[in-house]
Amino acid sequence: MVPKLWNETIEEHRRAVREAVLETTAALVAEQGLRGVTMSRIAEESGIGRATLYKYFPDVETIMVAWHERQIAGHLAELSELRDRPGTPGERLEAVLERYALIQQQRHGHAGELSALMHSGDHVTHAEQHLRHFVRELLTEGVQTGEVRDDVSPEELAGYCLHALAGAASLPSRAAVRRLVAVTLAGLRPQG
Amino acid sequence: MVPKLWNETIEEHRRAVREAVLETTAALVAEQGLRGVTMSRIAEESGIGRATLYKYFPDVETIMVAWHERQIAGHLAELSELRDRPGTPGERLEAVLERYALIQQQRHGHAGELSALMHSGDHVTHAEQHLRHFVRELLTEGVQTGEVRDDVSPEELAGYCLHALAGAASLPSRAAVRRLVAVTLAGLRPQG
Repeated sequence: MVPKLWNETIEEHRRAVREAVLETTAALVAEQGLRGVTMSRIAEESGIGRATLYKYFPDVETIMVAWHERQIAGHLAELSELRDRPGTPGERLEAVLERYALIQQQRHGHAGELSALMHSGDHVTHAEQHLRHFVRELLTEGVQTGEVRDDVSPEELAGYCLHALAGAASLPSRAAVRRLVAVTLAGLRPQG
Repeated sequence: MVPKLWNETIEEHRRAVREAVLETTAALVAEQGLRGVTMSRIAEESGIGRATLYKYFPDVETIMVAWHERQIAGHLAELSELRDRPGTPGERLEAVLERYALIQQQRHGHAGELSALMHSGDHVTHAEQHLRHFVRELLTEGVQTGEVRDDVSPEELAGYCLHALAGAASLPSRAAVRRLVAVTLAGLRPQG
């Protein structure tokens, strides 16, 4: 039997290779745009043999999807942490949406080009559905406390939020992002 | 000297060829997605010789850009007509945004995939800037009549509107689109 430590080392090694490939690919896309990235360039830049690279990922697109999923998972963890802080649903919704909008702003540039491609393609990741679900749950809580309008379903309101805040990507400052969040939140409030 | 009628006939013929190429390309994209479309397929399907096609357009991307620009120009004409009807700026804004959202909804599918690619690429057309400018002007009028909030610039509010209403693309019904427009408009109103 292979000792446990040995297994853990292999597992760790695999994770490190995967990590290196994802980081290298993201960096190449950021530098050269989507078109400049090939399996050969990724192997070269990450210092992994081409044969090894193909054992991990069949093609560039699969790497990009994995990178994108990992990005979203990281952001979800960050947003979950904000959601679980003390406060009313409305306050926590505001914190989550502001953070989400700032993340969108950071995605600007070639990495944003990558995300846009992922979003516009047929490929809709589980993680994205998770994000939508996540916002919807917060909105449902907000409806219960009367902080969020109840004449439109939380599902539709979640779609509205995520689309409106996607506009943060092209905003020049954090102040502009905060104004966008304020306008978006105003749309969510119960109407007199 | 070439008679005037002859020139007009040539001009008309050119317009007809251009039109046929754009329509064929849009139809091919709608059927097969972006990847299935080549210059040879476009020539074949539109019944134009390959050599002639290349006299009009150097590549598929140029055709797609031309198609997209024509789409937007058509939509702008429709929106301008709504803007110029009688009513307060707020009422006309609502009519324009609702029409815009319904247009977004119709773009669903492969043609939407095409538009999404155009939007996410480096290529931002003059027509798109025109649309943004158009909405911004209406918002500015709305600020003057007190129907639109004045604590955020019309420029930023225009970005908010267009992004929020882009969400209409995935909505299943016209009723859902109207709810989205109502929520988006609520974000634009002066805040108490």
